[in-house]
Amino acid sequence: MVRINENYKKLQSSYLFVEIARKISEFRKNNPDREIIKMGIGDVTNPLPQACLKAFHEGVDELGSTKTFKGYGPEKGYDFLREAIAKHDFASRGTEITADDIFVSDGAKCDTGNFQELFSPDCIVAVPDPVYPVYVDTNVMAGRSGKARGGRYGGFVYLEGNSANHFVPAPEKELKADLIYLCYPNNPTGATATRKQLKAWVNWAIAHKALILFDAAYEAFIQDPDIPHSIFEIPGADKVAVEFRSFSKTAGFTGTRCAFTVIPPACQIKDKEGKEHSLKELWNRRHSTKFNGVSYPVQKAAAAVYSREGQAQVKDLIKGYMNNASIILREMEEAGYECTGGKNSPYIWVNTGKDSWESFDQILKEAGVVITPGSGFGLCGQGFIRISAFNSPENVEKAMRRMKKVLKKPC
Amino acid sequence: MVRINENYKKLQSSYLFVEIARKISEFRKNNPDREIIKMGIGDVTNPLPQACLKAFHEGVDELGSTKTFKGYGPEKGYDFLREAIAKHDFASRGTEITADDIFVSDGAKCDTGNFQELFSPDCIVAVPDPVYPVYVDTNVMAGRSGKARGGRYGGFVYLEGNSANHFVPAPEKELKADLIYLCYPNNPTGATATRKQLKAWVNWAIAHKALILFDAAYEAFIQDPDIPHSIFEIPGADKVAVEFRSFSKTAGFTGTRCAFTVIPPACQIKDKEGKEHSLKELWNRRHSTKFNGVSYPVQKAAAAVYSREGQAQVKDLIKGYMNNASIILREMEEAGYECTGGKNSPYIWVNTGKDSWESFDQILKEAGVVITPGSGFGLCGQGFIRISAFNSPENVEKAMRRMKKVLKKPC
Repeated sequence: MVRINENYKKLQSSYLFVEIARKISEFRKNNPDREIIKMGIGDVTNPLPQACLKAFHEGVDELGSTKTFKGYGPEKGYDFLREAIAKHDFASRGTEITADDIFVSDGAKCDTGNFQELFSPDCIVAVPDPVYPVYVDTNVMAGRSGKARGGRYGGFVYLEGNSANHFVPAPEKELKADLIYLCYPNNPTGATATRKQLKAWVNWAIAHKALILFDAAYEAFIQDPDIPHSIFEIPGADKVAVEFRSFSKTAGFTGTRCAFTVIPPACQIKDKEGKEHSLKELWNRRHSTKFNGVSYPVQKAAAAVYSREGQAQVKDLIKGYMNNASIILREMEEAGYECTGGKNSPYIWVNTGKDSWESFDQILKEAGVVITPGSGFGLCGQGFIRISAFNSPENVEKAMRRMKKVLKKPC
Repeated sequence: MVRINENYKKLQSSYLFVEIARKISEFRKNNPDREIIKMGIGDVTNPLPQACLKAFHEGVDELGSTKTFKGYGPEKGYDFLREAIAKHDFASRGTEITADDIFVSDGAKCDTGNFQELFSPDCIVAVPDPVYPVYVDTNVMAGRSGKARGGRYGGFVYLEGNSANHFVPAPEKELKADLIYLCYPNNPTGATATRKQLKAWVNWAIAHKALILFDAAYEAFIQDPDIPHSIFEIPGADKVAVEFRSFSKTAGFTGTRCAFTVIPPACQIKDKEGKEHSLKELWNRRHSTKFNGVSYPVQKAAAAVYSREGQAQVKDLIKGYMNNASIILREMEEAGYECTGGKNSPYIWVNTGKDSWESFDQILKEAGVVITPGSGFGLCGQGFIRISAFNSPENVEKAMRRMKKVLKKPC
């Protein structure tokens, strides 16, 4: 008799953003005339850069003629895209990453979700708290957790973020873990890690033979020149880290779908007999067996991000969102709330001092604004909300006015 | 210490098409002036239908304006696409599949590879032999196999195809399996299953509480009106089957990327305590946790397949490839080879009576034609080659002339 994967039974409630979508849909049904401003899911709102649109159309045109038609592409992605990424995102920052180390995919959610497949089911997983739920849920599905109790899963190590450590937990001496998920600039808190802080993690991973899964999906928002954009800017990281990147937030590709994973050749993982295996080769096997490459016109559009026009347009796009972020940060701080993020990140993490879902419901019902409840990201998110800067400046101003009125009231 | 997933060590050699690509690349390097005709990997060669191109461009245009911009879409796919699929592919054939049962994805390779995650690691897997390697490799990765020996994996049940059963194995009484992969029209053999043959499988699955994973990626090539296009045309299949479909071969989307999986609500799978779980809900949880939807313009292009123009253009596309198939079938049969497929499928499965990889090497080196070695699909494929009809009629004629000369010679 066919039986289900029992691990799915451990999963708690539905995926955060699905739950939010359900609540919005219910609110819309009951309030068909109310205007909703979405500052929740972290979805971009501005159109694709012109350079990307042009290349996207050209890619589609190529599919319209026998001479230029493209069928299956390389599973890893086309050379033109991987070479542009290596040059602009990595060589330019002094790292030794080459095009061969880059695996293009249709999303960082897929990559961060799928990557754990390469490891033994008994690896100990450490996740930040608050955390992007995908790291947690995919490891639960793979059987690396115990049962859930009180908002946490048994078997996982939670790296607690709080006001004291400014939501950048440090590796503690007694920490025991094999796979460590880190995300900077952080989703959801917007916190960034300094070179020194990342170095501490890399050194810890080297000493403990652990692997860092570094999610850098928001690196394009970094304004401070001292903050590393890539974990590979830290010496030794090429032996103990993998990096996930995305065009989603950088260039507005959330609905277009393109991302990539970076695995240096120095990253070798042992089997139970102690024999080393190239992590890059393992992922290549997985990627070429379970994936068939990203849509060709999408890869063309992504490569255009690295053209001169594309770089200027992406810079403008980011500038616009970061202006929004500064408005939100200013307004929330003026209202007396303790805030994290918003300076090198499109997210502002606000301590409302109220239950997060109650804040969510109140802000939706009374202000018509969608934010993300901090508790949806973990126990340490309780009492916080995440506000996203992805919207028009007008909507951001309007949302702040409405929210300030509402937040001061009891739920 | 982080350790690898030991199951990866069981995987035999590299993925078939990666190996073929390597051989072609080596041949090109050594013979830069030789013309190669590719009839191997089963990749389409004709441009996208005009209706799809138009909708694709329109989709890109929508991403260029704030008013029509699309960010994250529904993970399951947009309603407009799922509704068109339900109406044209399923309601039209008298099945009860609705839009809600359809999950749009970026490829049937991903779907057929990922779907096994929903089941217990101790489920017994039955695969056809010859077989599309993805079914096998992904279950090896998940730990459902023993070690490989003599070209097969321990723990799997192999449903043997051969000249006697015309490569349509029947469920034998003593068969014990929980997950059964079936693919009709078949890749690689081109064989099709009759209603009676599919009914036998559905009845077997009902009796044995097993699940059929039905790959119908080639259904558009069916010419014979009596052959079912969907497993759901068989009464009772909605309780014991899942179906995988793709736009890749139907509409030339191999480089564009769009597919879908169909899971009827009646399909309930038990856990070890005997409690039933909706398979659709389980896949929805997996899909929304590990996937972020298909590129919006790609979904627009896919939906255009179902427009009046799209339907006519797709019909022409298929007609062209099926003309090629009939040329190949005629030439190979005239040359005295036993052939399967080519009548309701773009693949012709030819018994060359020689070692498959030797045939591959000989045909590549002497005829400059790429085919797929049958043994790459399993032990039962030894002695066969798969010829794909995806090329221009001129190239097909030329390839047949060259191949006929070569095949008669000893390797």
